[in-house]
Amino acid sequence: MSIVTIVGAGMMGSAMSFPLADNGHEIRLVGTPYDRKVIDRLRQDHFHPALKVTLPEAVKPCQIEELGTALQGTELLISGVPSFGIDWFAGQVLSQTPDSVPVLSLTKGLEDEPDGTLLPISKAYFKRPALASRHLSISSIGGPCISYELCARRHTTVALCGDDLGQLEQLRTILQTPYYHIRTTTDSMGIECAVAMKNAYAVGVSLAIGISEAHKNEDDTHWYNPQAALFGQAMSEMMRLIKLLGGQPQSVIYAASDLYVTIIGGRNRQLGLLLGEGLSFAEAQQRLAGVTLESISIITRAARALRLRRDASINDFPLLRHLDEIINRQAKLNIPWTEF
Amino acid sequence: MSIVTIVGAGMMGSAMSFPLADNGHEIRLVGTPYDRKVIDRLRQDHFHPALKVTLPEAVKPCQIEELGTALQGTELLISGVPSFGIDWFAGQVLSQTPDSVPVLSLTKGLEDEPDGTLLPISKAYFKRPALASRHLSISSIGGPCISYELCARRHTTVALCGDDLGQLEQLRTILQTPYYHIRTTTDSMGIECAVAMKNAYAVGVSLAIGISEAHKNEDDTHWYNPQAALFGQAMSEMMRLIKLLGGQPQSVIYAASDLYVTIIGGRNRQLGLLLGEGLSFAEAQQRLAGVTLESISIITRAARALRLRRDASINDFPLLRHLDEIINRQAKLNIPWTEF
Repeated sequence: MSIVTIVGAGMMGSAMSFPLADNGHEIRLVGTPYDRKVIDRLRQDHFHPALKVTLPEAVKPCQIEELGTALQGTELLISGVPSFGIDWFAGQVLSQTPDSVPVLSLTKGLEDEPDGTLLPISKAYFKRPALASRHLSISSIGGPCISYELCARRHTTVALCGDDLGQLEQLRTILQTPYYHIRTTTDSMGIECAVAMKNAYAVGVSLAIGISEAHKNEDDTHWYNPQAALFGQAMSEMMRLIKLLGGQPQSVIYAASDLYVTIIGGRNRQLGLLLGEGLSFAEAQQRLAGVTLESISIITRAARALRLRRDASINDFPLLRHLDEIINRQAKLNIPWTEF
Repeated sequence: MSIVTIVGAGMMGSAMSFPLADNGHEIRLVGTPYDRKVIDRLRQDHFHPALKVTLPEAVKPCQIEELGTALQGTELLISGVPSFGIDWFAGQVLSQTPDSVPVLSLTKGLEDEPDGTLLPISKAYFKRPALASRHLSISSIGGPCISYELCARRHTTVALCGDDLGQLEQLRTILQTPYYHIRTTTDSMGIECAVAMKNAYAVGVSLAIGISEAHKNEDDTHWYNPQAALFGQAMSEMMRLIKLLGGQPQSVIYAASDLYVTIIGGRNRQLGLLLGEGLSFAEAQQRLAGVTLESISIITRAARALRLRRDASINDFPLLRHLDEIINRQAKLNIPWTEF
């Protein structure tokens, strides 16, 4: 039994309390300043308003002001902040976490630097001046996992990645349950790239679902072939990017299963659908107001980096390039099929 | 303009007439003995009863007795027979085809030999004594392509594979259209393994869809996580098998897109669904009577080969092994999650 502190009471951070509680751990769930109302409600009756489930009794909900207490004696710190929250997490949380406490990041994303370098979140933390000389051990987790299904204790298989296999095995012992299956790998670059990019490419594949919706009146059959062709192109570009960044090609397996689940059940699919139906990005954004879409940031960052790099061309990633043109350059939908 | 002879008037063989007709070729569509009624109907009004579309005017439907005439002057022979028809195709068709006529096989499958060797169909032909000393050029085509969507001229991207890149480029010129996108590769082993195995693994992933259907009354949410975990395991096992057989790992891209389209829109999904709902294989087979399922044969053959091989263990392919146990050993559904 360990004491585990989760910072970020969003859907995935909070859902992690299920395998942890099932393994008998004490869980301190600390909300960010954005989670104030969620924590208020959890304190009342343990009901999570976004997940729409009652969290396990072992969860102790804490407001951000209680962070200091919540970190006391903790044996594992889990970050459930979204990618735009990592500066806050570095400054407010990691700054007061001793190097001896292992950190597990659930954040999906890649950070781009002025020279086109793309860094996984677990490495990007060390670019913050305050953390550069620290010896924190930051692992991360990726692979297909829809949060409310984790709460329902449905089987899933995820990848736990970091530099130290021994440390990863310890984390696996803390987290693994009969339904939450964990594989370990030292390929942080490959896994973090895969799980970040799948949000971008889920938009790409969903374009075909949107196109088919738009043609529903004249033709009520599905557009499976174009979806599959886009899925193949997405896989091809993700494999190319993983290799370019020095990751292992077999990590594309997680990109595949994570892309699959995001298309059939994730949030980023909605953006692709609307764009496929012919809406401009501005119109689609208006329609999705209030939904956090990691896809927009990852498309922008990856495309920006690929336009800068000398060892690659954005034209080797025509689907990503087109998504970037739609989102950041007001382009109309015009899938570059002949470049695939 | 070329003369192209297609043998096999099933759905995929017949659908190939669309890109060929759009490119201005003369098409002779020869039915196998099973296709007699289809050819009769096509002769009447060009309507294909299984595809439910009218084939292009450039198609000349021929009964099998007219094969000799249909092969006269042909510049490309396409085989649209299913995997159990390749002996027939070798004996009745290839025996009277000159080596100078390129052959394109649409057949999906792997053939297993007594020592556990698994051969792609394009190579298995040369194991027939009558063809062993011939110099036929047999290429094949794989990748996601649902036949009726090809007739609707929807975009798709497929892989054309064979030994001679120059020959493949010629075939591409004959077949490629603004909607039928073709990539060429010499990795026949990888592509043919991928497109054969995806039929097996589509059954595997669909098990989770069936399980979710069976639980619909007590829980109306989808089981996306288990589907995705099975998708990842399928990818992992397909990549392992491709490598084992000497194919190129990047051909797993086609396995991914082809698996995706087969799960969302193919026939083999039905078997997985019924097994996932708890039916025995015998019951599921009865329910699906009349539907040709390549999956049953490929699961049986691949598992049989892997049990025989010395350079691999069937336990490295736990999902495939379990599918084989259900189909050939009366096992009950019990997904081996902890072995993934």
